[in-house]
Amino acid sequence: MTDAAALYWEDMEVGQSATSRPHVMTRERIIAFGEEFDPQPQHVDEDAARSSMFGELVASGWHTASVTMRLQLEAMMGQFPGGALGAQVDGVAWRRPVRPGDTLRARIEVLSKRPSASRPDRGVLTLKTTTLNQRDEAVQEMTASVLAPRRPA
Amino acid sequence: MTDAAALYWEDMEVGQSATSRPHVMTRERIIAFGEEFDPQPQHVDEDAARSSMFGELVASGWHTASVTMRLQLEAMMGQFPGGALGAQVDGVAWRRPVRPGDTLRARIEVLSKRPSASRPDRGVLTLKTTTLNQRDEAVQEMTASVLAPRRPA
Repeated sequence: MTDAAALYWEDMEVGQSATSRPHVMTRERIIAFGEEFDPQPQHVDEDAARSSMFGELVASGWHTASVTMRLQLEAMMGQFPGGALGAQVDGVAWRRPVRPGDTLRARIEVLSKRPSASRPDRGVLTLKTTTLNQRDEAVQEMTASVLAPRRPA
Repeated sequence: MTDAAALYWEDMEVGQSATSRPHVMTRERIIAFGEEFDPQPQHVDEDAARSSMFGELVASGWHTASVTMRLQLEAMMGQFPGGALGAQVDGVAWRRPVRPGDTLRARIEVLSKRPSASRPDRGVLTLKTTTLNQRDEAVQEMTASVLAPRRPA
């Protein structure tokens, strides 16, 4: 059974891009993520953050990366039947701080594609994902390879 | 004022390593993380996960990466006064699935070090962090550069 809305590796073209919905980073979720995964002063405590390198409360880079995962899933990868397996991240750079109230979007571009050498039912897509704030400034840049399903014969 | 237990860039040697405490990945937290950041069937629903590529519920790679952040902070980076700024991730690879009940540890090794070209009060450390399960199998390998504080003159 094939789903008319489903996307397969064959449907993706190099240079193709998609942009996600916006997502607001709240103070509450920034602190909750920091307390669970990255309890440094700049991520968990508004007062302590003032004497940190940042001078204010900012989101953990891993929080930005995790939100980016969700946004790129909704904007592109979630349309692959069975989803996309994140094979490998080739790099993540955090370019600017993410502050409470910032609105993020993910812009995904297909950099390259090739068949999988080991799995004939999958193809590799190399994606560049830029996470932008409400001023269209890049806060995070990531390049990653994912395994997408190939269209059944 | 200097803290006797504080670590500075000068204290770190190439080849030095540290291993974190263990951390248990619970079904509850795997699903909660998946629902918030990576709602693919294999991360959020035990039944749907059975017909996914994995055949069972597994943690999002971003959940493993976020837990690894916490473990490496406790084992090494949290001892830098003011913490360590994650400058850049040079690569993350997810080697094996992480299942409910798995116990993770992070092993961090200093691969190289150099002064920061732009910030005389900071030095760059390139770290390789391997996340191991209870069978000492690598579930994630990551290489990243962080900015650590230099010892005040």
